[in-house]
Amino acid sequence: MAQKLKIIPLGGLDEIGKNMTALQYGKDMIVVDCGVGFPDEDMYGVDLVIPDFTFLTQNAQYLRGMFITHGHEDHIGSIPYCMQQVSCPIHGTAMTNGLIRLKLEEHRLTNQVKLITHKAGDVVRAGCFSVEFIHVNHSIADAVAFAIHTPIGTVVMTGDFKIDPTAKDGMTDLARLGELGNQGVLALMCDSTNVERQGYTPSESIVAESLDKQFKNCSERIIVTTFASNMHRIQAILATAHRHGRKVAVTGRSMENMLKVAQELGYIKVPSGTIVDLGATKSLPKNKVVIVSTGSQGENMSALYRMAFSTHKQIDIVAGDRIIISASAIPGNEKAVSRIINELYRKGADVVYEKSEGLHVSGHACQEELKIVHALCKPRFFIPVHGEQRHLQIHGRLATTMGVASKNVVIAELGDVIELTAKSCKIGEKVTAGKIFVDGTGVGDVGAVVLRDRKHLAQDGMIVVCVNISAQDGGLVTGPDIITRGFIYVKESEGLMEELRAVALEAMERCSRKRIRDFTSIKAAIKNDLSGYLYKNTKRNPMILTVITEV
Amino acid sequence: MAQKLKIIPLGGLDEIGKNMTALQYGKDMIVVDCGVGFPDEDMYGVDLVIPDFTFLTQNAQYLRGMFITHGHEDHIGSIPYCMQQVSCPIHGTAMTNGLIRLKLEEHRLTNQVKLITHKAGDVVRAGCFSVEFIHVNHSIADAVAFAIHTPIGTVVMTGDFKIDPTAKDGMTDLARLGELGNQGVLALMCDSTNVERQGYTPSESIVAESLDKQFKNCSERIIVTTFASNMHRIQAILATAHRHGRKVAVTGRSMENMLKVAQELGYIKVPSGTIVDLGATKSLPKNKVVIVSTGSQGENMSALYRMAFSTHKQIDIVAGDRIIISASAIPGNEKAVSRIINELYRKGADVVYEKSEGLHVSGHACQEELKIVHALCKPRFFIPVHGEQRHLQIHGRLATTMGVASKNVVIAELGDVIELTAKSCKIGEKVTAGKIFVDGTGVGDVGAVVLRDRKHLAQDGMIVVCVNISAQDGGLVTGPDIITRGFIYVKESEGLMEELRAVALEAMERCSRKRIRDFTSIKAAIKNDLSGYLYKNTKRNPMILTVITEV
Repeated sequence: MAQKLKIIPLGGLDEIGKNMTALQYGKDMIVVDCGVGFPDEDMYGVDLVIPDFTFLTQNAQYLRGMFITHGHEDHIGSIPYCMQQVSCPIHGTAMTNGLIRLKLEEHRLTNQVKLITHKAGDVVRAGCFSVEFIHVNHSIADAVAFAIHTPIGTVVMTGDFKIDPTAKDGMTDLARLGELGNQGVLALMCDSTNVERQGYTPSESIVAESLDKQFKNCSERIIVTTFASNMHRIQAILATAHRHGRKVAVTGRSMENMLKVAQELGYIKVPSGTIVDLGATKSLPKNKVVIVSTGSQGENMSALYRMAFSTHKQIDIVAGDRIIISASAIPGNEKAVSRIINELYRKGADVVYEKSEGLHVSGHACQEELKIVHALCKPRFFIPVHGEQRHLQIHGRLATTMGVASKNVVIAELGDVIELTAKSCKIGEKVTAGKIFVDGTGVGDVGAVVLRDRKHLAQDGMIVVCVNISAQDGGLVTGPDIITRGFIYVKESEGLMEELRAVALEAMERCSRKRIRDFTSIKAAIKNDLSGYLYKNTKRNPMILTVITEV
Repeated sequence: MAQKLKIIPLGGLDEIGKNMTALQYGKDMIVVDCGVGFPDEDMYGVDLVIPDFTFLTQNAQYLRGMFITHGHEDHIGSIPYCMQQVSCPIHGTAMTNGLIRLKLEEHRLTNQVKLITHKAGDVVRAGCFSVEFIHVNHSIADAVAFAIHTPIGTVVMTGDFKIDPTAKDGMTDLARLGELGNQGVLALMCDSTNVERQGYTPSESIVAESLDKQFKNCSERIIVTTFASNMHRIQAILATAHRHGRKVAVTGRSMENMLKVAQELGYIKVPSGTIVDLGATKSLPKNKVVIVSTGSQGENMSALYRMAFSTHKQIDIVAGDRIIISASAIPGNEKAVSRIINELYRKGADVVYEKSEGLHVSGHACQEELKIVHALCKPRFFIPVHGEQRHLQIHGRLATTMGVASKNVVIAELGDVIELTAKSCKIGEKVTAGKIFVDGTGVGDVGAVVLRDRKHLAQDGMIVVCVNISAQDGGLVTGPDIITRGFIYVKESEGLMEELRAVALEAMERCSRKRIRDFTSIKAAIKNDLSGYLYKNTKRNPMILTVITEV
């Protein structure tokens, strides 16, 4: 009897980012993508969010390989963390592997991990799976979809994609998707990022035209910021600069790294003599200079941020500079981006940003493009991925209008084991899955309790009450001493501080009268009285910590 | 010799919200608007931001009156705080005063403040100023602009406005603005909120049509959320519901309050029998029910939030419910709104939101409307207001294309004293102005230091080190005891806690060897060693607080 194919989403459902999916058939397992997520605004102090790898470590002996669709952080960012826990070869295209290699170097893992490079059209055997690399358009070079041929049928995973008929590197391989559809696709797992948007995502070539227009009518210095990973965009900037007789300098570490990798791998052609050192731009006439910078998301301490706030070591913004923000703000970054734009305006720069048209296009397919992929693949089962709940639901509805039976649309949760046969699908058991927080070098040591405390501390600060009690008779030896941080401006609130001491003292005396001697009860009494007093008088609720020492 | 007219922006420049402007001529001063701002995401624990009233309190004897353009929070929200510091009559239209009255009741200030009600067309004398009320369109009823006639000329302050030729209450009074322009406008102070947007803001009547479309093809329960203050919108919802034979119930405190005020003042006509109690909707067929709810900005604990997360006492979202979000997310609220949308989708609701067209229109003028006002007023001087730096700069450039000399465009900062004569303008001295934070019932007791500490606590939590030292010989009596909050999950980090104790102990012993006895130096040594150790081992930087007690 045929076994069931198990598809286990470990990231990327009910969230944007942190994409990761495991596929298991019998004693073979492969994983597609291994991305990071970025913390929500209430995940104080968290640097990154990675998937929970428990299921992988528990099934490490079955793991035949990891396949990566493209080199964006939300698809490769967790690889170093994962590879410290399990071991298997990683398969990607040249550009993707170039970026993974940078990441492994940073984590000193280069020698431990085997990276295998393929190109679109290749088919890679991994246990009982054959994984076919299919060219797709996306906002990073060398992105692929996978057709995963399994003993019970083919699963198509689009990865992130759009359909760009005028892409420099050729359109998404619709012909191959169509062939697969004609041969029969068991299940389609498809990018849902832009499913709320009607119509089509415009071509990347639109941006090249807009850049040309911005360069043409400008006699001042031009500074362009964009996503460092968008090599097609950077290629367009270089070509436009060259055409207009301008030299290009690059600032920002990720931009420099990316450019190096892309150049080495031949994904970018630099017109000879076009790139110069940042320092060299100072001796050039303004209308001969383009600076390509990081900071398109308003990141603190990015090159653009430092230029805007006058902390960049080499470049100062001067009145007249034309700054082109060739990106749109990712949800949550809007305020950071607009803070930089405000500073640039304050310095008299001329800022061209997303409100103006054609300076950025999305890398994800809109509704009409998604319909094309559905129409070509004609899958029996449909599993929307890469999206929050609303994206998944809307994509599910779109699939039914494209002919998938509604009972064959699977809106899953992380850790669900989706069990497929050639004819049926159901959600079976559930495995461990979720969010692991990275804070500094710590992985997983910050959890719900720590975050709750950080939130509490952030909201109203804290009060520490220190008391020394006699070991002999339980009488007060010193204190209560009260220290606060993040609560109130103490120098102007000495009256309140006196009151708090009195309230704490009274709580202790009450305990003493009632012959309450155990520290837990005394602490509870002090905390209770103080927080009641504070809420009544200030409507605030700082964290209260009582330290009682027996001396 | 004629005196100078002084215009002193106290809020609303370089920021969105907290609008407030003082005008002074000789011994007379008036104030226009008195709004609140909302805290940025890094103002931890701050509830509201209000203007610094120092300049007003210092010049209280000159204050002849406060004039309010309309009843939005960013124009009236600081009135209770201001009226605890200075005293003067407040002039507004009926709807505006109705909303101010609610606010004064909440702060138990009703008896202390004199509210005087006027209507568009009225002219109010206040010292040497004559303030004329001019009807404008905005997303709240009864909004006005002011023409402030001063001894040296007329200043036009638009307040927030748009030009809506099909507004139910009549278009912005362009005729009067034109007359003023023909008579001569000394200075124009104009709303800059939408200056980045080309073209025109669509009419509110578009929304009524879109609502009708949404009601027409729906046989399920309809839940609409919008800004409680947008009475035109709520009127349209009521009328649409009535036309489609549906009853309307209201949920959410601000929505209930607003509706009460608007009904009492006749700003809303409820078709008889249309409004029912929320409880009564349960016994009605689904296609006879509309619920109007707060929560259009994703506010925690708003009615829509509670419905979405199943904590609303009376209403549960069920599959099929059509939820119409008739609002767009204010910058910064995007994630909160999308969190609610995701929950509604998860419950199987059909959510219609801003991505779909025509369910919301802005209340602010776009570029073409702004140009109309400039063309009508033909001011000698132009002072853009209500905007961040980029809005002010872009509006300044727009003014020059409309004929204002660039030297007559004044991009000011809060606290600048703009000195006008009939022929000249300059920025003179600077007065105290800025942001005062409201946290709970505290006003101004949270400042930069407290916020810096909250941010530090939020980022990495805190560590408290307690030590008791002998008063006789300075030897260690108890400790070091280490307590942490928001730093690390302690139960799984006992090794680290032991290390920290050892590091603190070693720091103390080093001090002892060096015969260092003063507490400040010992604390510094402990803090320094711990933070060095922590950064090296965890790349984190918690707040470290050392308490040394002599026993």
